[in-house]
Formats: sequence, C-alpha cells, structure tokens
Amino acid sequence: MDPVVPRLLRGFRDYLPAKMIPRSEMLRKVEATFQRFGFVPLLTPAMEYYDILGGKYGDEGEKLLYRFRDQGDRDVALRYDLTVPLARVVAQYRDLIMPFRRYQIAPVWRAERPQRGRFREFFQCDADIVGAPNMTADAELLQLACELLSELGVENYEIRLNNRKVLSGLMAQIGVARGKAENGVLQTIDKLPKVGEEKTRESLRNDNGLDDAKVQTVCDFLGVAGDSEEVLKQLRGMFSDGVGAQGVEEVTQVFDVLDAVGLKKRVTIDLSIARGLDYYTGTICEAFLTDLAGYGAVLGGGRYDGLIGTLKGEEVPAVGVSLGVDRLLEGLVELSLLEERAAVTDVLVALFEETAAYSAQVARELRTAGVGCELFPSFVKLGKQFRYADRRGQRWVVVAGADEQAAGTVTVKDLSAGTQETVALAEAVQQLSQAAPSSGGDSA
Amino acid sequence: MDPVVPRLLRGFRDYLPAKMIPRSEMLRKVEATFQRFGFVPLLTPAMEYYDILGGKYGDEGEKLLYRFRDQGDRDVALRYDLTVPLARVVAQYRDLIMPFRRYQIAPVWRAERPQRGRFREFFQCDADIVGAPNMTADAELLQLACELLSELGVENYEIRLNNRKVLSGLMAQIGVARGKAENGVLQTIDKLPKVGEEKTRESLRNDNGLDDAKVQTVCDFLGVAGDSEEVLKQLRGMFSDGVGAQGVEEVTQVFDVLDAVGLKKRVTIDLSIARGLDYYTGTICEAFLTDLAGYGAVLGGGRYDGLIGTLKGEEVPAVGVSLGVDRLLEGLVELSLLEERAAVTDVLVALFEETAAYSAQVARELRTAGVGCELFPSFVKLGKQFRYADRRGQRWVVVAGADEQAAGTVTVKDLSAGTQETVALAEAVQQLSQAAPSSGGDSA
Repeated sequence: MDPVVPRLLRGFRDYLPAKMIPRSEMLRKVEATFQRFGFVPLLTPAMEYYDILGGKYGDEGEKLLYRFRDQGDRDVALRYDLTVPLARVVAQYRDLIMPFRRYQIAPVWRAERPQRGRFREFFQCDADIVGAPNMTADAELLQLACELLSELGVENYEIRLNNRKVLSGLMAQIGVARGKAENGVLQTIDKLPKVGEEKTRESLRNDNGLDDAKVQTVCDFLGVAGDSEEVLKQLRGMFSDGVGAQGVEEVTQVFDVLDAVGLKKRVTIDLSIARGLDYYTGTICEAFLTDLAGYGAVLGGGRYDGLIGTLKGEEVPAVGVSLGVDRLLEGLVELSLLEERAAVTDVLVALFEETAAYSAQVARELRTAGVGCELFPSFVKLGKQFRYADRRGQRWVVVAGADEQAAGTVTVKDLSAGTQETVALAEAVQQLSQAAPSSGGDSA
Repeated sequence: MDPVVPRLLRGFRDYLPAKMIPRSEMLRKVEATFQRFGFVPLLTPAMEYYDILGGKYGDEGEKLLYRFRDQGDRDVALRYDLTVPLARVVAQYRDLIMPFRRYQIAPVWRAERPQRGRFREFFQCDADIVGAPNMTADAELLQLACELLSELGVENYEIRLNNRKVLSGLMAQIGVARGKAENGVLQTIDKLPKVGEEKTRESLRNDNGLDDAKVQTVCDFLGVAGDSEEVLKQLRGMFSDGVGAQGVEEVTQVFDVLDAVGLKKRVTIDLSIARGLDYYTGTICEAFLTDLAGYGAVLGGGRYDGLIGTLKGEEVPAVGVSLGVDRLLEGLVELSLLEERAAVTDVLVALFEETAAYSAQVARELRTAGVGCELFPSFVKLGKQFRYADRRGQRWVVVAGADEQAAGTVTVKDLSAGTQETVALAEAVQQLSQAAPSSGGDSA
C-alpha cells in the first residue's frame, strides 16, 4: 500500500489542545449561562434530507451546501446552520411544549472558498425562543447576550440594536420595493461603519440608483445619533405610522425592559445595522468587544417570524442569537481573559518502574482530594518527565520514588519557584489541593 | 413550492430536551473526570480525505463509510470513529508533545442497516494515551473507567479484563494461524457469555474446524475462573513462555497498580472477552452495570500498538477506552441516577403585559443570586403559564403583577405543595436560592 500523507482537507482544521482547552472552558460557561436562563439543549443530526435544507439560504447559500447521494440513493445534505433544523423540529413534533427555548452548540458545513478566518466546518452556538411574539423575548435574548459576555469576564462590550421594521419604514419613505432593491440598499447601509459616509452616498447613488433627495433621506436617517432616548425621540418624529412606527414601538418596548434590568447603557441603537440574512423581520442586534477596535461582531441575531412557517405551514414567531464561537474565543485570548495552554492540570506525578504502583496511588489520592493530575504514563528518565511538564506549562512535579515510598512521603518540585520539598503524602495532598485545585468545571 | 414534509433520515434521530438534559449533565461529569486525569480535549473535522479513512475498518466497515465527492471533486468521507483521526493527528503534527493523552466527544457516521438501538449517527466518547508502552497507562485507563462510573453515581459495576496476547498464546497452543482463522475463533469465544458452553463447543467444532482435543483446550482455558490472583496463577501454569506468558505478565502488572489504588476488586479477568476490532494488541476491557442483568457493555477499550503506525510509518504504542454514550445514558436513567426532564430550571417567572419590565427585573435578581429561572416570554393568560410550568415539571412559579410591583413583592407558588406566599422580592430570592439552586454546572 502506498503511504498515505496525513493531512487535512482545505478549509478544515484540527483544534489541538492548546486551543481546545480554553475553548471548552468558554463553552462550559456559555452552556451554564444558557441553562441559567432556562434554555434547554437540543441535538439534531448533521445530515438531513436535501429538501429540508434546500431553497432556504438564497442562491449563494445553495451552492455551498454539501449535498450528495447516500448508500440508499437518497438526496441528502449536511446542515448549513442550526436554524433550519430547529424549524424542522418545531414543525415535526406537534406535541412540543410552546413557547420553546432551546440552545444548540454544533458544527455546520459550508463549501466556502477558503480564506483567512473562513472555514468549511465551523461551530454555531445558538439560543432561540420559538413561539413568543412579544418584545419581552427579544429583551430576554439581549440580556442573555450581556450575561454571556460578562460571565466570560468581558467588562467592555456593546450591543448594537436595530429593527428591520424601522428599516422597512425608511424603504417605504424612499419608495424602494421589498426584495432585491431593498436588500441592495440594506447591504449598502450595513457597510457604513466600514466605508464611511462619503462612499455610502456614492454607493446609494450609483449602485442602488437613488436620486439625491433619497440619498439625503437615507443619510439623515443614518445620521440620527445619541443615547437610546434621543434616538427613539427622533425616530418617532420620522415615522408617525405604518411599519416604521411599529418598529420604533418595538425598540421602545425592548428598552423598557432593558432599563428595568439595568442594561440600558449596554445597548446602543445603531441604525446602520441591517444583517445579511433576508429572514429577519424585527429586532436585529450585534455584540462587540469594545476593547478590540475594529474587531468584528462576536454575536448576532434577531427576530425571524416567517422562517419556521415555511416548514410548518403556519406562522411561528421566533427570535434568537448566535455566538461566533471562534471569533469570541480569539477575542478572549487577545484580551487575556482566556489562555492557550497545553495541559489541563498543573500537577504531574512522575513515574518510576520500581515504584509504579506507589506513583499511581499518589495520583489517586490527589484526584480524590480534587486535585487534577496526570500520572506520567511510561518508564522514561526523570529528566525527560520534567521536560515534559515544563514544556506543557505544568507547575508541580510530584516525585514518588523508592525512598519516598519507604517513608510514605513524596517530593514536590515547584518548577516555577525552582524549589522542592519532601513531605508526608497527606501533607502534599493538602498543600496541592489548596494551590492547584482541579480544573474541569464540575467538581461535584 | 410543494410543501416539504418535516422528517428525519432513517437511522438518524433528534435528541429532544427530555433526553438532552440528562445527557449534557452526564457528559459534563465525564468531561470533568477526563480532565481530572489530565486528558486534554481534541477536536478533529467531521470530514477527511477518503484515503485517510479507507482500508482501516475491514471489508464490512469499508461499506459503511459515508463517502462522496465534494464540490472540488475530492474523494472525501465522514469519520467512522475517533481513533483513525487521532492517528492522523499524531502522524501529522510532528511537534506534538508525547506521550499524548487526549479525549474527544463527537459524532461518527456509519451507514448501518438501521435496527433497534443501532443508528447511522452516534456519539463516541474516547480517552486515549498515545506513546506509552507500559502497563501503567493501561491501569490508568481502567482507573479512569472506574472513576467515570463512580462519578456518575454507579455503585455496582464491573470491569472485565482480558489480554489479546493471552488469547494469542492460546491460538499458538492449538495451532490456529493469525488472521482470518484466529479472528473466527475469537468471535466464537466472544459469544460465550451469550450462547453458553454447549453452543460454543459446537461452533468451535463446526464453524472453526477445531478437532475435539483443541475444542477441549479452548474450553479448559475458558473455564479458568476465580479471583484475579487465582486466574493469574492458573494462566501462569498454562503459558510458560512466548506471547501467552508475555500477556499474563502484562495482566499481572496491571493488577499490581489496581491493587495499589484500591480497585482490584472492581476488575475481573474474563478470558472470553475478545472484542471485535482486529487492531487490539494487548489489554482489552469492557465495563458493565451489574444492577442491569444482561445489559451490554457501557465502555470498552484496549491497547492497539499497531494502528497509529499505519499512518505515521513508525510504531506508536497506544491504549484507550471508549464510552458508549447512548447506552450509558439509558442505563443511568433506568437506574434512576439521571432523569429525563423537560426543563433545566425549577423556577418560572410569569409575565403580564402591564408589568413585563418588573417581571424581567425579578428574573434578573434570581439569576444574579444563582437561581436558574425562565421568564415566560409572551403575553398569555396566567393559567396557561401555570400549565406550561406544570407540564414541564417546574415546581415554582413566581408571579409579579401590578399589586406585587407596587409593594415590591412577588407571589411564589409552589406547584408541588399547592401553596403560595407573597413576600418581599429580596426574601423570595433568598428562599429560592436555597430551595432551587441553579443547574448548569459552572456557577463561577
């Protein structure tokens, strides 16, 4: 047999431990926060009938679906997001208790052209409330977004909020029809923070075909600024009825709740946020780490009252947020709120052939006391074992050789202080359980 | 567009919350235990080049691979297990620090013929130590298996242990050659506990073509019983040199460590255990819940010193265990160690349109105090909200209407006791934080 070159498919990646350790720490906190808000976990298959997923993601998305024939010649595809499978679940299980709030953390697959920061397999981390038409649900998700970031240690963050109905009100004012034309203008608006006002004007004129008066109307709208009360006041002046006024009322209701829970200051109205997906119908939001200037959104979401109906055949209101797992992880590492590291335990118990059983016993005593530790698993020279601990950033090496076994002691080396001490096993366990408590979250 | 019927592919399933809640609780404990033993998380892609996976799983396994051409006409396949991707990682990253102990919890795909309890997508949960040839590593994994079950509340379990080298010693004695013939005999032996001695004799004679003397040798071997010391003594008498003696020495070394860590009684030598996979080379083991008679193994594993070499080009010793996530979950539910339930929080905060902001504030206070709670997310009649809590097994409903808001109180209904009480918000928070602490593991 020809030797096979060990390699990855383009656009796919391995998460080696250095990245996976902080990642699993992050997701553990995220999951605990979801649960504290009463979101329940759901798991759907990676693979679905093609007709469930097809036609849901626009022309561009359609091309990115991993679609193939299975052994039974069925037309199948790998999931593209977690939202359409959620819609299928809601449509399929008629006895599901509503409203339904669920979270799901799972990989999705898109055959994108690989480029920096864009992968063909990536994780989505979604929380949604299905079956709740009122703005309390939207406010609850904004609160969840704040709580997630604060639970992860982020002090400086900002949620930017907008509402598709407000944008639709603007479109009605400048006479832009729903569909392609509206999407075109919204795309231009969405780019404002990146390209600035001058380019936005140009684009509205040349790409979207708006005349000067309409361009001015859009720019006046986008120029509305200030704290949420000021913005809402100005918007009320611009939209006295119709869908625009309805949108302004929705935003007002959301802020009433945010005010009550002390989060009003965390949320800014940003009228340029449009979000790419066609399916949003009301609230839209994005979250940013303000200590990282120019860093993209780490969370996004909004209300999508129409999507589930396409599978269920009756309209089901829904609102959700999606955490960008990879971008958030990189941001938290950059902010030193999480760190990449090669080991989950700070303690290594060294191993000698003659006293292997004693070393195992020492490791067991430590773990029983809640001290996570690794027992070096093979018979190599002690120096090699120290290098192993050192390279992996482990601070303590516990040596349990023949002398120690005879005396019921261990020698604890502190690689960081460069010190070592031989003490009774029970005392070492006691000291290390204070200095190096177990990682791994659940210590029950 | 024709309406699409919401449905699953055959052999695939959804985990609805009732099952996902205990499942995520279980996996959280499993992960914490892995980490306490120093295993680090690894994540590999769902999809690999076909040539990485192909030819590794025998003729039967090969047919079960989900293999297709991607958009770039690459020959790709979905992963069939977590072991071959681990081998690829070890072969690919030459700077990986060895020995390498990692865990991975992830779905795998096999196009099996669907039948009760057999699915085309299922989760594997593996812990392996790569690069450690000594029996300390094998003993460490047996200890991990014990610790996992005990951490999950299982009091009565048994690990059955065997060694492929011992079985090879037996094959040498009866002159059965490696390869197909050996595998055939091992398969017959593996079925002994299910079919009994008489059928095993028949099968050894008729299916494996052994003469009466050889059948007797095998049955004498399988008849060796007693505690580990007795069995080892008898085995030493049967295998005085060669691979069989080497296997007996390995088992002896494993028991030396198990004895030191107080787990000798938990592990029984069962000479009929052979395990299906060809790639095992030494230790093999399976774990059983002894309170569930006839229930299949919930964990299995062993040493496979040859597999990684097929990708790396040099031999790399490895030993691992794999938890049967679904079977273990069902067993734990059957033993009432976990329960299926529809909600993760015991507290529901009811919602009224007039006092929506106050209700949100109440929910926030509860959560801040560590009490997981759900805020009912839409404006429906109070009776409906109570039914929602009741159907989902939530015990407390906190009502925060206009009267309560005016007085700074809430009314706490205990659905299980059928009582209710109106108290100051702070007092309710205090009471509930004692009675209904947050679920979700990490409360840091």
